Amino acid sequence: MYQQKININTRGRGSYDATREVQQVVAQSNVEQGLCHVFVHHTSASLMLCENADPTVRADLDRFMARLVPDGDPLFEHIDEGPDDMPAHIRTILTSTGLTIPVQHGRCDLGTWQGIYLWEHRTHGHRRSISITVAD
Amino acid sequence: MYQQKININTRGRGSYDATREVQQVVAQSNVEQGLCHVFVHHTSASLMLCENADPTVRADLDRFMARLVPDGDPLFEHIDEGPDDMPAHIRTILTSTGLTIPVQHGRCDLGTWQGIYLWEHRTHGHRRSISITVAD
Amino acid sequence: MYQQKININTRGRGSYDATREVQQVVAQSNVEQGLCHVFVHHTSASLMLCENADPTVRADLDRFMARLVPDGDPLFEHIDEGPDDMPAHIRTILTSTGLTIPVQHGRCDLGTWQGIYLWEHRTHGHRRSISITVAD
Repeated sequence: MYQQKININTRGRGSYDATREVQQVVAQSNVEQGLCHVFVHHTSASLMLCENADPTVRADLDRFMARLVPDGDPLFEHIDEGPDDMPAHIRTILTSTGLTIPVQHGRCDLGTWQGIYLWEHRTHGHRRSISITVAD
Repeated sequence: MYQQKININTRGRGSYDATREVQQVVAQSNVEQGLCHVFVHHTSASLMLCENADPTVRADLDRFMARLVPDGDPLFEHIDEGPDDMPAHIRTILTSTGLTIPVQHGRCDLGTWQGIYLWEHRTHGHRRSISITVAD
Repeated sequence: MYQQKININTRGRGSYDATREVQQVVAQSNVEQGLCHVFVHHTSASLMLCENADPTVRADLDRFMARLVPDGDPLFEHIDEGPDDMPAHIRTILTSTGLTIPVQHGRCDLGTWQGIYLWEHRTHGHRRSISITVAD
């Protein structure tokens, strides 16, 4: 198995395309057919496979999540780091900490409209650590 | 690793049992012990492990999702393909694009009540492409 | 691949730290670098990677889920086993039946704040069967 860590610096809440970074690691692994696993080592940021053509999709998604898990909800007691702290943990659990993607012909075999995104759930930017493992 | 693509034609929104199709691929792989990964190459259909005995479970699930992520919600700007377009993307992200299941004795080692379902989130039917990878 | 089943007895709804149990299996596998897959063989309990320092996080999470998927919701027809039956299935599908975690230096390479939790969604306690697979 080929394993590599990368970091992505976020500029606060929102999603960041990591497709190119992941495909580069798969290329370096020289794995032709297998599986690629992507993992984020945090509890307030997550990963998703999302539509990659129309940025409005991710804007709508952000608005949906802001309504579903509102910042500053009086339900929450864990507020030490601010009104976005507990919502960030919940958003992470409702989405994914890890993604596994089939590898074919030396690349993640994504559908036409699938992009790999890191989703920052905190208001402020963070340095996010991601492990990529490629297995054949 | 053994890897195979299958297609499932859906007849519109709802869940479709894919357990038999996945178990057949695992049988063909001749893997006795390992992992089976199932992946859907789309952003408006997903996969789930769901109760397989009472169809009411999946009907309740459909009603729950229709209330949680309503079609035609004025929150959404991405409506080019209709009122079910953006909800389909959100439903996919709230559930799973991929499932990994342990393989034991040459079969996916599912619990008694676990079935593998493809969940179509668009109103109309689609041809859905699924990759199955079996590793030992 | 190294594969082992463990059981965890729950005392009803809530989350149970399984990090130590999973790390023990990884140690027994003698895998230095690879992937660890954890899978729960049920449709009314799930797995999550959650903040491991402040128990308030998991209490908030429980309250959030109780509001999002309320017990006894009149929307549900599948109520044979009580008002928590259908909500348990939905909570499972909104979270995860399986987790995959990178293995480095013979251990699950979790982030500082990441713990592995079994989340019991039924009101009463159950004996939950979990498969752990370690691949190198």
